[in-house]
Amino acid sequence: MDGELNRFFNPRSVAVIGASREPTKIGYLIVYNLLRGFKGKVYPVNPSADSILGIKAYSSVTAIPDDVDLAVISVPASSVPSVLEECGLKGIKNVIIISAGFKELGTHEGVEREVKVVEIARKYGIRVVGPNCMGVYVPKSGVNTTFLNPERIDFPKHGNIAFISQSGAFGIAVLDWAAMRGVGISKFVSLGNKCDVDESDILNYLVDDPDTQVITIYTEGVDDGRKFLRTLKNVTPVKPVVILKAGRTEEGSRAIASHTGSLAGSDAVYDAVFKQAGAIRALGMEELFDIAIALSLQPPAKGSRVAILTVGGGSGVMATDAVVSLGLEVPKLSDLTVSKLRKVLLPIASPYNPVDVTGSTRDEHFIDSLEILMKSGEVDIIILIPYFMAPAISKEFTDKLLRKVREVSKELDIPLPIVGAVTGGRYTMKMSTVLEEGGIPMYPSVERAAKAAWALYKYGEWLKRNNTFEEYINRLIKCRSLQ
Amino acid sequence: MDGELNRFFNPRSVAVIGASREPTKIGYLIVYNLLRGFKGKVYPVNPSADSILGIKAYSSVTAIPDDVDLAVISVPASSVPSVLEECGLKGIKNVIIISAGFKELGTHEGVEREVKVVEIARKYGIRVVGPNCMGVYVPKSGVNTTFLNPERIDFPKHGNIAFISQSGAFGIAVLDWAAMRGVGISKFVSLGNKCDVDESDILNYLVDDPDTQVITIYTEGVDDGRKFLRTLKNVTPVKPVVILKAGRTEEGSRAIASHTGSLAGSDAVYDAVFKQAGAIRALGMEELFDIAIALSLQPPAKGSRVAILTVGGGSGVMATDAVVSLGLEVPKLSDLTVSKLRKVLLPIASPYNPVDVTGSTRDEHFIDSLEILMKSGEVDIIILIPYFMAPAISKEFTDKLLRKVREVSKELDIPLPIVGAVTGGRYTMKMSTVLEEGGIPMYPSVERAAKAAWALYKYGEWLKRNNTFEEYINRLIKCRSLQ
Repeated sequence: MDGELNRFFNPRSVAVIGASREPTKIGYLIVYNLLRGFKGKVYPVNPSADSILGIKAYSSVTAIPDDVDLAVISVPASSVPSVLEECGLKGIKNVIIISAGFKELGTHEGVEREVKVVEIARKYGIRVVGPNCMGVYVPKSGVNTTFLNPERIDFPKHGNIAFISQSGAFGIAVLDWAAMRGVGISKFVSLGNKCDVDESDILNYLVDDPDTQVITIYTEGVDDGRKFLRTLKNVTPVKPVVILKAGRTEEGSRAIASHTGSLAGSDAVYDAVFKQAGAIRALGMEELFDIAIALSLQPPAKGSRVAILTVGGGSGVMATDAVVSLGLEVPKLSDLTVSKLRKVLLPIASPYNPVDVTGSTRDEHFIDSLEILMKSGEVDIIILIPYFMAPAISKEFTDKLLRKVREVSKELDIPLPIVGAVTGGRYTMKMSTVLEEGGIPMYPSVERAAKAAWALYKYGEWLKRNNTFEEYINRLIKCRSLQ
Repeated sequence: MDGELNRFFNPRSVAVIGASREPTKIGYLIVYNLLRGFKGKVYPVNPSADSILGIKAYSSVTAIPDDVDLAVISVPASSVPSVLEECGLKGIKNVIIISAGFKELGTHEGVEREVKVVEIARKYGIRVVGPNCMGVYVPKSGVNTTFLNPERIDFPKHGNIAFISQSGAFGIAVLDWAAMRGVGISKFVSLGNKCDVDESDILNYLVDDPDTQVITIYTEGVDDGRKFLRTLKNVTPVKPVVILKAGRTEEGSRAIASHTGSLAGSDAVYDAVFKQAGAIRALGMEELFDIAIALSLQPPAKGSRVAILTVGGGSGVMATDAVVSLGLEVPKLSDLTVSKLRKVLLPIASPYNPVDVTGSTRDEHFIDSLEILMKSGEVDIIILIPYFMAPAISKEFTDKLLRKVREVSKELDIPLPIVGAVTGGRYTMKMSTVLEEGGIPMYPSVERAAKAAWALYKYGEWLKRNNTFEEYINRLIKCRSLQ
């Protein structure tokens, strides 16, 4: 793990330079959000305050009597260079610059100021996140340098998905969404102008981070394409990287240029880089996390053969459409498997693929069919469509299903990925959450479940090509047995 | 309006043949769900019960002393023909056959039985919905012939979207979802095997239904393609029709054949029919309703020029990508409009398209910009991306925005469609709901908002091609002024 960067995520002490006593100010909210979860020392820095939020404040960072692992700077842009210089004198090696007013202005002055910041950072060996960013959020260590009013945003729980976002606003919106969706985050970092620390640096850190299983990135473009390609190639055989790259179209690229002053570069080049480096490209926010959730909960697939097990015939057809459109197969099952299925199903059910247990299904029809499919050796991924509202499905169905999946999984040589889709309202969502908390990612439509299955296939292919499939699976099994 | 079909949706009295006293039985749940909202007379029919759910029961439909507008049959398939015969003798003209065990079995017996049903219906001039279906749900009249346990499903409120579903399970799942999503439904009908009433019949009815503004269809294939094309062509110049057709792929078509025994037909043919008839094709459940909600709340667009007004730069870029990928434009704004925008925006904001008010925005920066865009005459659709969590956005923002939209709309010759996208958690969703209840459809991602904008453009184009654009707009304006 990159020791230089570790203090951004796991500092023992944090100084907030530009801390404020005014509850509406950024400098107040950073301290407020930090204090909510961070167990280390917090040092507010404000030349005209004795204390902030009940904690002793200091007139400058150099006045702090103890060591400071991380400084968060939120002062007017013009004061940032001198404040950074003080951080250097204090021996602080990790600094997050929240302040805006740099390169993103598109003015000569803004660019000059950012160059100055980089010079100072180099002189003192400081690593800088930002400027013009939200900084980091790490549920496990409680570090939270964002400045949003907690009345308007919820923060997600600890989990195994890391999220790197160039955009602060989008990043924060996603955190809030993730909290509502029940998605756990290992590390969030908002990179802003990326004057020093960039996507590649964070990737290099996360590849060794035991808390991170999947890495998601929102980017509008990277400055050092070779470094990015090299880094991705190192990371993807070990951990999946899912990327949402804005500026897919010429018009989108122009919009990037007009709002950050940076060149987005040709999208075709990015696409080629992602393919060459085995990164999975998502085309929107929902897709980014649909895919990440699948990879965070399920093993990759060793092939492209999908079985669909459904309570509703129509949804089975739509799932078939979606799966096939993405280049996966919905293979015919062998006569043996069909006859086994027929034995456990209702006479009106369809034992072919998609296996349609029908709305008259009882728990055991669905669960016994799942067991047969899991053990068949004829498919590489299973998509479940369990309409919990079916009258003869019991309230214990989800627990029974999870128990069976765990039991059968132990008997398999290679774990078989399972994803689910179910449309519905409150009762359905409640049951769906039980399955997801039990490790089966659940989606509100078959199309989104199919895309998740596709990602499990794509990543499996990539691992096989890199000869790291077995290693990855073994690591997964080891991690889970430790839990 | 087709009088023959009206009694399915607005009967004065309903007989439930096969009503049951057992709370787990279909015949109980149909009566239960009917009694929850239906204000007319309900006649349970059961030869061995005196009363069901506190209502007098009859030994047969012919024993009912009064006229019966609608009969709902839920008896074993083998008894359906004789029961239908009794309905004929009783003079009932509208029958819903819930029972399964007909053509969908794929057996000779099942097919024969369905033929028999059709013969009896013809003899007595009975219109039949089903068999093997859920029947209808009409919030306004309270008719509800579905048989799901209300502990497991919520029913949506009255609204202006009609939903025709071949699949019962999928249809019910969507109703439940719609209730949670706050989508209002005018009429829901589950068609099942379509032995008599089919999509075209319902379309012909709905075209004149004053409660229906948008028609959505889930179908696996129609038997009479010419009738369907002819009907669609009559309906789409008056009301938008959005269709989710399963069996897009060869494998999907095969899955249809195996589960309903019907031939799905070539998907390319359906696609051509939809295009020729101006129906909008959706590729999944979420898309079907994303599009329907937009068309139900907003006018169609008179062109393809989209303005994007955003609080987050990154989301503006992603929205641009999504809009352009769908074939719409994100045009440059005129110097005059740019200079007007610059006057009302913060200096750090971007007055180009996408207009980026930035995270420092106050209410008036966003709302004044919206007014300028609405009045510019340079765009045909506006996509809003209002991150409500931005610190200087007030809690009154949504009300102020809706007031401004209403005020400016009155000054415009042609109403300008507006859709919104915002990602986030609980606070964001609360504010988002206020905007949607105020008439601006809101989506959880810019990609979905872009698709909704695309549909408003496509439908506008179709209306213009049919010379019904003005007529449609005038009807909309008239309807809204009556509300």
